[in-house]
Amino acid sequence: MSRTRRRALGGRVCGKGHTDKEAAFLAAAWERVQALWAECSDIQRAAAVLEWDQLVNMPAGGAEARGTQLATLRRLAHARLTSGAMAEALADAASDAAADPAWLRAAHRLHDREATVPAELVEERSRAGTAGYMAWAEARAQRSFAVFAPALQRVLDLTRRYADAVGWTGQRYDALLSGHEPGIDAARVRAIFAELTATIVPLVAAIAERPPLSRQPFLQALPRDGQLAAGIDAIAAFGYDFARGRQDFSIHPFSTSFGPGDCRITTRVQDDDFAVGFFATLHEAGHALYEQGLPAAASRGALGEACSTGVHESQSRLWENAVGRSLAFWEWFMPRLRGHLPGRFDAYGAADLYRAANVVRPSAIRVEADEVTYNLHVALRFDLEQRLLSGDLPVADLPAAWNAGMEHLLGVRPVDDLEGVLQDVHWSDGGLGYFPSYTLGNVLSAQWMEQAAAELGDLPGMIRRGGFGPLLGFLHTRIHQRGAGPTPDELAAEVTGRPIDTAPYLRYLREKYGALYGL
Amino acid sequence: MSRTRRRALGGRVCGKGHTDKEAAFLAAAWERVQALWAECSDIQRAAAVLEWDQLVNMPAGGAEARGTQLATLRRLAHARLTSGAMAEALADAASDAAADPAWLRAAHRLHDREATVPAELVEERSRAGTAGYMAWAEARAQRSFAVFAPALQRVLDLTRRYADAVGWTGQRYDALLSGHEPGIDAARVRAIFAELTATIVPLVAAIAERPPLSRQPFLQALPRDGQLAAGIDAIAAFGYDFARGRQDFSIHPFSTSFGPGDCRITTRVQDDDFAVGFFATLHEAGHALYEQGLPAAASRGALGEACSTGVHESQSRLWENAVGRSLAFWEWFMPRLRGHLPGRFDAYGAADLYRAANVVRPSAIRVEADEVTYNLHVALRFDLEQRLLSGDLPVADLPAAWNAGMEHLLGVRPVDDLEGVLQDVHWSDGGLGYFPSYTLGNVLSAQWMEQAAAELGDLPGMIRRGGFGPLLGFLHTRIHQRGAGPTPDELAAEVTGRPIDTAPYLRYLREKYGALYGL
Repeated sequence: MSRTRRRALGGRVCGKGHTDKEAAFLAAAWERVQALWAECSDIQRAAAVLEWDQLVNMPAGGAEARGTQLATLRRLAHARLTSGAMAEALADAASDAAADPAWLRAAHRLHDREATVPAELVEERSRAGTAGYMAWAEARAQRSFAVFAPALQRVLDLTRRYADAVGWTGQRYDALLSGHEPGIDAARVRAIFAELTATIVPLVAAIAERPPLSRQPFLQALPRDGQLAAGIDAIAAFGYDFARGRQDFSIHPFSTSFGPGDCRITTRVQDDDFAVGFFATLHEAGHALYEQGLPAAASRGALGEACSTGVHESQSRLWENAVGRSLAFWEWFMPRLRGHLPGRFDAYGAADLYRAANVVRPSAIRVEADEVTYNLHVALRFDLEQRLLSGDLPVADLPAAWNAGMEHLLGVRPVDDLEGVLQDVHWSDGGLGYFPSYTLGNVLSAQWMEQAAAELGDLPGMIRRGGFGPLLGFLHTRIHQRGAGPTPDELAAEVTGRPIDTAPYLRYLREKYGALYGL
Repeated sequence: MSRTRRRALGGRVCGKGHTDKEAAFLAAAWERVQALWAECSDIQRAAAVLEWDQLVNMPAGGAEARGTQLATLRRLAHARLTSGAMAEALADAASDAAADPAWLRAAHRLHDREATVPAELVEERSRAGTAGYMAWAEARAQRSFAVFAPALQRVLDLTRRYADAVGWTGQRYDALLSGHEPGIDAARVRAIFAELTATIVPLVAAIAERPPLSRQPFLQALPRDGQLAAGIDAIAAFGYDFARGRQDFSIHPFSTSFGPGDCRITTRVQDDDFAVGFFATLHEAGHALYEQGLPAAASRGALGEACSTGVHESQSRLWENAVGRSLAFWEWFMPRLRGHLPGRFDAYGAADLYRAANVVRPSAIRVEADEVTYNLHVALRFDLEQRLLSGDLPVADLPAAWNAGMEHLLGVRPVDDLEGVLQDVHWSDGGLGYFPSYTLGNVLSAQWMEQAAAELGDLPGMIRRGGFGPLLGFLHTRIHQRGAGPTPDELAAEVTGRPIDTAPYLRYLREKYGALYGL
C-alpha cells in the first residue's frame, strides 16, 4: 500500500508504521479474535455441561438426543475454531501492539493443529470412535480381543491419517502427543520412561522380597454417609470451594469445569473398601483445584485453559498421593476420620492407615495399581502405542505383545483379554498418545512438592496441622494462574529452575518406599 | 428458463415441471432445511440443559459464566434460524414435492417472526430484560414500584419496538400474543374473557355467601420423604415415565424438555402445607406428559414442538385440576396417601381432601389463587398489558390501575406493591402477551375433558380405579402426537369439533363449585 493510499484512508502514520485506521483495524482484529475465541469457549463449555449431565443425571431415554446435541455443539465449535474468520483474525492480531503474544501463541497451538484436519476426517474419527467404543464394550462382555480387533484396526487407520494431517517431524506419535503435551515428543518420553524403569523395576523387585503391608484398615463395611463426609471434609480443608463446585456420583469418577466459578467433581463409594471412594475424591478434587485456580479474567480466552494434560494430572496426583498418601496427612486426618465414622478406626493409628494407603503389589489392572508400579503399566501402553502407530505391531499380535510386556515389566500374566489388553477404554475411540500424561503428572507432582518444600519450609508439619493454605497458594500462584501460557517444560523451568525432570520423583519413591518397606 | 436451457442442464422434464436436476436440487433443499432446523433445535435444547442445571444444580460461582454461555447459544440459535441459508432453504423447499407443507407452515411461523426482528433489538431486549429482572427483584425487596418503574419503562419501549418489528394488523398486542398462540388475536382473547367474567364474577360472589370449606387436612407438619413419595406415586400412575425424565428440587417448580426422551420436572416441598408441593408435582408432570408424548421422530423438526403455550398449559391444568382436584382422584388416592404418610390422614375421608383442594377465596396473589378466581387475576393483567402497550396507561399509573382492577374484579385490595403490581416476574423481562395462555389452558382443559368423557365413557370411574391409561392415550393420540402441526383453534376443532370454546369450562366450574358450595 502506497503512502498516498494511506493518506487517502484519512489517517496519519503512527507507531509501528501503521496509519490510525490500520491500527484501529488491527486493534479491532485483536478484539475480534478474542470475541471469536470466547464464542468457541462458550460452546465447548456448554458441551461440557451436557456431558456432565449425561454422566450424572440423564435418564436412559435421553441418550440418543444427547448424543446428537453434543455432536452438533462439537461440530459448531470445530467449524468456528477453524473458520476463515478465525484464521484471518489470528493473522491480523499478530501485527497489533495491543495483542498479547502469549495469548496468540496458545491460540495458534490449538488452532493450527485443528485447522489442518479436514472436517470429514473429524467426523469419520468420531463415528469410528463410537463404533470402537461399542465393539470394545462387547469384547469385554465376551472377554475376547478378536471381537474388538476390526474396530480397533479402523480406529488405528484413522488415527494414523489424523496424525499425518496434524503433521510431525520425528515420528507419527509426536502428532498425537503434542495435543496433550505441547513441546514434548516421543523421544523425550522414551528417555523419561528409561530413567523411571531403571529405578522402579529393581525397586518393585526389592519390595517383593519384604514382608507385605496390609490394606486391612480400609476393608470394612462402612456407612456411605460417613465415607462421603470424610472425603468432603478432606477436600474442603485442601481448599476446594463448594461455592464454585459440587460433588455428585458417577460410575467412573471424573472432574469437569464450566469456568473457574463452576468446577465439579464426581466420586463413587464402595461399601467394603474405604480407599476406593476416598482417594477418588482427593484425586478429582486435585483436578478441580487446578480449574478453580485458573485465571478467571482469562477464562474465555486462549490462556484460560490448563497448561497440559500432564500438568493437570500433576495436580490430581499431588493431592491424592504426595499429600493424601503421606504419613503427615493421616496424622492430621485420623481423629477427623474417627469423627465421621465413629468406632470404626479405634483399633488403628495414623501409621496403620499410612501403610494401608501405600501397599505395593504388582497387579494386572492399571487403575488398581499403586504409586510405584503404576508407571510400568503406562510404560507398556506407551511402547505398544508407538509400535501400533508405526505399523511394527499388527493389531492381531497386540494381545500377545501386551501379555509379554506385563510379564517382562511387572511379572504378572493376565488371565484373559479382559484382565489384559481390553482393560482400558482409551484406544477404543482413538485416544492414543494420552497415557504418557499420567506418568508426566507423577513426575511433575514430585517436582512441585520439592520446590514447595524448598520455598515454604516444613510441608509435612503444615499438613500435620491441616494447614494446606501455603501449599495451595504456591500451586495457585506458580501453576494455576499461569494457565496455558507456558509449555509444560517452560512451566517446570519457571517454577523449579529445571524442565521436566525425573530425579525428584525417583527420590520420592526411593525414600518413601524405602522407609515403608525397610529397604 | 427455456426448455432448451433445461435440456442443457442434462435432465429430462419430470413431474411438476422440474427437470431431474432441478428436482434433485429442490429435494436437497428439503433435506437442507431440515438439517438446518435440526441444528437450531439442538442448540436450543443444549441451552435448555444449561438452564435446567442453572436452576437445579449450579453453584453460585457459576452464574456469570453460565449467563454468557447461554447468551452465546441463544445468539447462535437466532443467527442460524434467521440466516440467509435458512430463508433460502425454506423458500426452495416450498417448491419440492417431497417437503411436508405442515412442516413448512410451522417452520415459517417461527422463522418469519424472528427474521423480521433486528439482531440488535434482540440483544437490547435481552440486556434490558436482565436489568428489568434485577430492578424488579430490588423493588420487591423495597416493596416499592417506583424502584422498578424506570426499568419497566425501558422494557416496555423495547417490547413496543419488538412488536412493531414483528408486525400486526389489529393492535400491537397481537404481535406478542401470536408468539404464544398462533392464529389468536387480542380481540378474540377479549371476547373469551368477557364470557368468562360474566359467569365467574357472580359465581365468586355467590360462593362468598356460603359457608367456607376448610384447607385443614393439608395444613399439617409432614415428613418431606412421604410428601415426595406421594407425588411420585401419583404422576407415575398418570403415566409419567421416569426412564425418560426425573424430578428434582428448585425454588420455583418448572418443567423442561431436551427431547421426548428426557422431559424433566422440578418441585418443592412445604413442610406445613401438603398441597403446595403435591399440586406443583401434578402440574409440572402434566407439562412433561405432553413433552414425553410429542412425536419422537419429528423431535428435531418444526413439527416436534408443542402446539402453543395455552395448549401446553391445558395439559398441566388438566392433570392438576380436572384430574388432581376431582373427587374421583381422591377416592383412588386416599389409601395410597395414607400409605405414604401413615397416621396423618386417618381422621379424613376422600371428600375432605376433595373439599380442601377446592377452597374458593379471593386473594391478592395469583399463584395462590383457586381455579375459580384464577382467571380474574389473568383478566386484570391482560387488560393492563393492552393499555400499557397502546400507551393509554402510563407506567407511573400502573399501581393505581392494578389496585382498582383488583378491587373491581376480586374485591381485594393489595396491602402494598409487593402484594400487588410487583408479584409477577413476567413484565420485568418483557414477557408481555404470555398471561392469556394461562386462561386459554384452563378453557382448553375442559374442552379436552368433555370430549374424552364423550369418547371414553365413565372417566370418573376410571380415575377412581387409578386407570389413567385411556385418558393419557386420548391426549397422546389426539393432542401430543399432533405436535406443532395445527394452530390451537385447529387442534380444538380437530379434537372436539369446535374451535376454542368457553362453554365446557364454564359448565365445569358451575357444576363442580355449585355442588361443592351447595349453590
